[in-house]
Amino acid sequence: MGKTLDFYFDFYSPYGYLAHYKIDAIAERYGYQAHWHAILLGPAFKAVGSKPLLDIPMVGEYSAHDFARTARLEGVPFVMPATFPGATLAAGRAFYWLQDQDSELAKRFAKAAYKAAFAEGRDLLQLDTIKAVAQSVGVDAKALETAIQTDTVKERFKIAVQDSLANGVFGSPFVIVDGEHFWGNDRIPQVEQWLARGGW
Amino acid sequence: MGKTLDFYFDFYSPYGYLAHYKIDAIAERYGYQAHWHAILLGPAFKAVGSKPLLDIPMVGEYSAHDFARTARLEGVPFVMPATFPGATLAAGRAFYWLQDQDSELAKRFAKAAYKAAFAEGRDLLQLDTIKAVAQSVGVDAKALETAIQTDTVKERFKIAVQDSLANGVFGSPFVIVDGEHFWGNDRIPQVEQWLARGGW
Repeated sequence: MGKTLDFYFDFYSPYGYLAHYKIDAIAERYGYQAHWHAILLGPAFKAVGSKPLLDIPMVGEYSAHDFARTARLEGVPFVMPATFPGATLAAGRAFYWLQDQDSELAKRFAKAAYKAAFAEGRDLLQLDTIKAVAQSVGVDAKALETAIQTDTVKERFKIAVQDSLANGVFGSPFVIVDGEHFWGNDRIPQVEQWLARGGW
Repeated sequence: MGKTLDFYFDFYSPYGYLAHYKIDAIAERYGYQAHWHAILLGPAFKAVGSKPLLDIPMVGEYSAHDFARTARLEGVPFVMPATFPGATLAAGRAFYWLQDQDSELAKRFAKAAYKAAFAEGRDLLQLDTIKAVAQSVGVDAKALETAIQTDTVKERFKIAVQDSLANGVFGSPFVIVDGEHFWGNDRIPQVEQWLARGGW
């Protein structure tokens, strides 16, 4: 049983999307297992007094360019989702409902959701998109639709988001490993260095 | 005559400090000349509705740790300056007064000022520190003291800061090369890739 690396991401985070392609391979290379946590950036923005990058003067224009430029450099497709920014509640609830059954299935769902949003530009705020994404990884869409409308599943996601804040997670992507916190897709190389050297 | 890469930095920017060690070598490796621009983050924070990293809940604690951790990884000394954050007016004025005489001398001054602040923890807001730093690179400290109190030199820095904002610079470090904007010490590897490949 390897050690755990915690990977936090918001389904509508462009940099989370970029990082999600890499994190499992990096963790596995050094004998770690990446444990994925869907979060919402909204409460994090509230906690730190910030807002979505695209809504910030000057930073917004820069960021839109940087998302696409970094994706090209990393060799992955990139488009902006149809609705952005937004609170990806259904996606987050679906993720935890699946994770409590089968964590690998939850990861496959998350990867398919990221692909739908940032490779295909689809609208993750629509329940129909979430159902189609779930179906594409073999999940019963009707069962998912019912489950994510229950208070239990809603509460499950809410608590996960609260826990992320309590753990010091204020952005996406965010990695916690060996008690060290790394914020941003641009810290993924440092995460890899940290695992390779056992710290520095 | 090589092409120009524009490097913007605030004298009290920890990530600007980290980047300043690398930027000239990267530029020169690909036939570019780095043109340094001292700026002030205060007006940039106002423009984007932000504030110094250390003053932001959660982000502050993370950043203090990240500054030091990244410096260790990059193999350079790091301490926080005695007064931080703060508006490094005297340093900026001295920088442009020198740059208008000898741009290489201005760079040597900037490097010595960064060393004083982030390797030795000295207070760059004190005129005595600026004079000592200037003297250490062979500048007449008395002449500098007189010059930076003139309206001409004050105006010179003020306009440079305004120009940086007009050029889209909202952070430190910030690089503009071939019309591309790169924000942050963590984008320096992308700057190098950009120069090496001629874009992507």
